[in-house]
Amino acid sequence: MPFAQRHLLGLEGMSRDDLTFLLDQATEFKEISEREIKKVPTLRGKTVVSFFYEASTRTRASFEIAAKRMSADFISLSGGASSVTKGETLLDTARNLAAMRPDAIILRHAASGAAHFLAARVDCPIINAGDGAHEHPTQGLLDTLTIRERKGSIEGLTVAIVGDILHSRVARSNIFALRTLGAKIRLVGPPTFLPPEMAAWGEVTSNLHEGVADADVIMMLRIQQERMQGAFFPSLREYFNVFGMTAARVSRAKPDVIIMHPGPMNRGVEIASDVADGPYSVILEQVANGVAVRMAVLYLLAGGVEDESAS
Amino acid sequence: MPFAQRHLLGLEGMSRDDLTFLLDQATEFKEISEREIKKVPTLRGKTVVSFFYEASTRTRASFEIAAKRMSADFISLSGGASSVTKGETLLDTARNLAAMRPDAIILRHAASGAAHFLAARVDCPIINAGDGAHEHPTQGLLDTLTIRERKGSIEGLTVAIVGDILHSRVARSNIFALRTLGAKIRLVGPPTFLPPEMAAWGEVTSNLHEGVADADVIMMLRIQQERMQGAFFPSLREYFNVFGMTAARVSRAKPDVIIMHPGPMNRGVEIASDVADGPYSVILEQVANGVAVRMAVLYLLAGGVEDESAS
Amino acid sequence: MPFAQRHLLGLEGMSRDDLTFLLDQATEFKEISEREIKKVPTLRGKTVVSFFYEASTRTRASFEIAAKRMSADFISLSGGASSVTKGETLLDTARNLAAMRPDAIILRHAASGAAHFLAARVDCPIINAGDGAHEHPTQGLLDTLTIRERKGSIEGLTVAIVGDILHSRVARSNIFALRTLGAKIRLVGPPTFLPPEMAAWGEVTSNLHEGVADADVIMMLRIQQERMQGAFFPSLREYFNVFGMTAARVSRAKPDVIIMHPGPMNRGVEIASDVADGPYSVILEQVANGVAVRMAVLYLLAGGVEDESAS
Repeated sequence: MPFAQRHLLGLEGMSRDDLTFLLDQATEFKEISEREIKKVPTLRGKTVVSFFYEASTRTRASFEIAAKRMSADFISLSGGASSVTKGETLLDTARNLAAMRPDAIILRHAASGAAHFLAARVDCPIINAGDGAHEHPTQGLLDTLTIRERKGSIEGLTVAIVGDILHSRVARSNIFALRTLGAKIRLVGPPTFLPPEMAAWGEVTSNLHEGVADADVIMMLRIQQERMQGAFFPSLREYFNVFGMTAARVSRAKPDVIIMHPGPMNRGVEIASDVADGPYSVILEQVANGVAVRMAVLYLLAGGVEDESAS
Repeated sequence: MPFAQRHLLGLEGMSRDDLTFLLDQATEFKEISEREIKKVPTLRGKTVVSFFYEASTRTRASFEIAAKRMSADFISLSGGASSVTKGETLLDTARNLAAMRPDAIILRHAASGAAHFLAARVDCPIINAGDGAHEHPTQGLLDTLTIRERKGSIEGLTVAIVGDILHSRVARSNIFALRTLGAKIRLVGPPTFLPPEMAAWGEVTSNLHEGVADADVIMMLRIQQERMQGAFFPSLREYFNVFGMTAARVSRAKPDVIIMHPGPMNRGVEIASDVADGPYSVILEQVANGVAVRMAVLYLLAGGVEDESAS
Repeated sequence: MPFAQRHLLGLEGMSRDDLTFLLDQATEFKEISEREIKKVPTLRGKTVVSFFYEASTRTRASFEIAAKRMSADFISLSGGASSVTKGETLLDTARNLAAMRPDAIILRHAASGAAHFLAARVDCPIINAGDGAHEHPTQGLLDTLTIRERKGSIEGLTVAIVGDILHSRVARSNIFALRTLGAKIRLVGPPTFLPPEMAAWGEVTSNLHEGVADADVIMMLRIQQERMQGAFFPSLREYFNVFGMTAARVSRAKPDVIIMHPGPMNRGVEIASDVADGPYSVILEQVANGVAVRMAVLYLLAGGVEDESAS
């Protein structure tokens, strides 16, 4: 079964088959990053442009490493050093880049829907690397891949997502993928982060003990201090007291629970250091899987050729 | 006929033969960006350093894509993250970079003459990617190439350049190239943008209707709002009312007129959106030609070898 | 004799054999940058991540050129555009990068000891590209290489280091390497830059005439104006009057003295322009050697394979 999509904008509505196909492809590519010579010629002669309006370390680095390990040319643009500051619209900037004939544009933007907007108007595959509070599909895929590796299958698992669900594109992408693949979702956080409509996605609770009870997976979200402004909870210390993931709280989950975090972590705010570094944590596996997932996405969207001859 | 120049500093004084040679070379390279595998080994093992003291999206991206499609190594430096902030002179920075043995240095700088200054003092080919209000030769070349493609020849065409001629390095480079190749130039804008000495280059008028009448080419310039400070015209709305390019105004030009803009565009300031996106617009062709022109320039200056063996 | 170290954190304590091995390797690689095709496949399929929390032009460019000339993939991250601003610890950022399986991480950081800290905790070779006022080992190596090339050997030379020894990681790395290889060190500067414990490293004097008398090498340090705050000497003019390197002062050294500076230079502050550009200056040779030294370091730490087949 081929992967029929031209863009990767989000995981909402993506079929079980497409999700599985992407994860299988990523699994196949994982081994490349473990070789002595971490390079295949698959995307040689392809141009991948990353355009990040919001700062990022790991996501951009992960895409760049993925592209280069497949021999693509990678051009990195940021919102600051760009025509953005000269008053050009996002659409004009993207059309201009597209006229240079890249094989994919990776976009991170503060506006929800930015990637969809471009995909409808620009003649180039668009990869959403995070759009506002909407979706972050490669993060959702790498998290799902990590869970699948550890648990064998997503079907029937209980996944507790804890924190600021309201503002989290990471949560949304995970919820869409994990539900499609058969997981049961629990959303846990302060009531201000859990608007009533979220009940459509799974159990909703502000009681952390209930939320993590017998969970197979606990996925912590980052408290985005820069967006909080004291409006959603009294203080970071207060937040940690009620929702911070500690060893005692983890012990209420299944004995083989795994603890996830998309990074960057606020140690002592949403997660205790001993949990982040402890035996249940799969946080660094998530990062490693990020490269594999992005290799798969670039391969499928930027028109890679299965050619194993020397580069 | 070989291309005998060591640097590309400007188009002023460049011979018809050299201009034609560059455009022909660019035309030859255009096809590479349309291939499935957009990569040739022509500049393999060559190092190209771009040094942009002024922010840029498209020019830097265009050079980087051009270099990488020819297999050069591309090192991108910006004024902000640089020794500039530590008090080093431009010349010392450039000499230091040259000591690392690049095959070309691409320079963008706010000071008119910066590229000439370095070319006389640094042992490395210098490519001017814009120096103050002086020249932007690769932009002039890509515009000239776009006109030549659409019109077959430059000879005898009437080209109306509209806007802030005074501050525009784009206008200057175009004027030099287009005049040398036989075009008739009209300079159109507010009197404050048209000092008397410009009459040496062509017709000068502040009457837009006269300026575009029967033109083969209308080249709009960007209003650089950051430089205007209200000194040159009352307001942006006022500017658009008098000099903004609208469909009605375009209709006074030849029926097969083409509308150009170097970007980034201020829609609704110097150009109406329907004109920018309309049938006469060749704005995205300009961008595509930018990559081809820069491939040609890098090839001729960075010492490319015609070697079609596998990279 | 193989090079047995996994990281390059500093030159303090590095054996004469290891230093010599690194310098010999660099000497061997110098010739690559002088070829028509400046590229070898030695690090093909290796990923090198540079992570600069402090701005840099030449050091980052030098590492990047070195890596690319050896065919490594090079990923450049800066502190500004990074998860740093989101509150992540340095260690978490580094662990995350390491999970992407780079073959080396090049770190520049304002905190002395940052590279050692990571090397003890992250599973990846760490190359210190400057940590606070502590060490800058590749600078020490390239300076030592430059001296060895000019003088044949380090043994028995008198090296006068002039300026802000107290804050200089360049001075420290040089002192360690040069002493190990048998040079006699003189430290020259205002008393505020020369705390008493420096007497352990060599002669200490605030008398420039004595300091440079019969020196084989004069190494000027950059006055880091951004750190001075008027506390260490009255003014820049005052500094130049007393410690600035002028032709008259150079004449007190050996007739074949060489003048070094790590850059970026403050002309007219620590060094007169005619000295910087004069016949004794080896400043640009230092830069050229920087690329060779970094090629050697990357080769030895990032697991290069001696394979001269086509890339």
